[in-house]
Amino acid sequence: MSFSQTINPEISETIIALEKGALEKWNQGDPSGYLKISAEDVTYFDPVTEKLLEGLDNLTKYYEPIKGIVEVSRYEMVGPKVTAVNNMAILTFTLHTYKGEVLSMWNCTEVYRLEPDGQWKIIHTHWSTVMK
Amino acid sequence: MSFSQTINPEISETIIALEKGALEKWNQGDPSGYLKISAEDVTYFDPVTEKLLEGLDNLTKYYEPIKGIVEVSRYEMVGPKVTAVNNMAILTFTLHTYKGEVLSMWNCTEVYRLEPDGQWKIIHTHWSTVMK
Repeated sequence: MSFSQTINPEISETIIALEKGALEKWNQGDPSGYLKISAEDVTYFDPVTEKLLEGLDNLTKYYEPIKGIVEVSRYEMVGPKVTAVNNMAILTFTLHTYKGEVLSMWNCTEVYRLEPDGQWKIIHTHWSTVMK
Repeated sequence: MSFSQTINPEISETIIALEKGALEKWNQGDPSGYLKISAEDVTYFDPVTEKLLEGLDNLTKYYEPIKGIVEVSRYEMVGPKVTAVNNMAILTFTLHTYKGEVLSMWNCTEVYRLEPDGQWKIIHTHWSTVMK
């Protein structure tokens, strides 16, 4: 059993690439990237969820009315950090998104789990807005 | 290697009890409970952090000016859920706090790691406010 949070740089790159791939679709109004990399038992918080949203089916329904609405012209993933213990990894980052020149700031925690087929899937998402 | 998120009920109870112990001190303006159960390499987001806060020393300094300020007359930990893979566990809950009759709602994600001495310590905290 290892207690180190040091992580193979390849795992870190893999996870950040998965997240960026999903995020770039999201920024064009397409939630399918996040749904594809979320596990069946995913749980989810965002700034308007008044309780934990549980399961991929519920997340899929939740995202349905958001399709085509999000429109981000530019983003920056600030300080992405991946830490891991065994087959779980935590990705944290701050997201700066721009719609025109208007900046929004978000903090994000994603917990990924290495699945039996060798794919990393999100088992927990927490998005929050940074208050200024 | 196990991929199940089912968890020994005792572990779940242990972790919820750790969190409630720290939270009840916090509600009286005392951050020491959280500091005591956070690992040296803890990372932290809350609604006003504009980037990830890293390390117990930094968290200790961050909490310093908050001492004695928080004053919660009543709280409810709504829907606490613990999921685990090996020696990591994720606790999620929604917190309702009351100052008099004024309700505030928070979502919280805590990632706990089982340390070599058998204690569970927080390695990542994410607090956010629920927007209504």
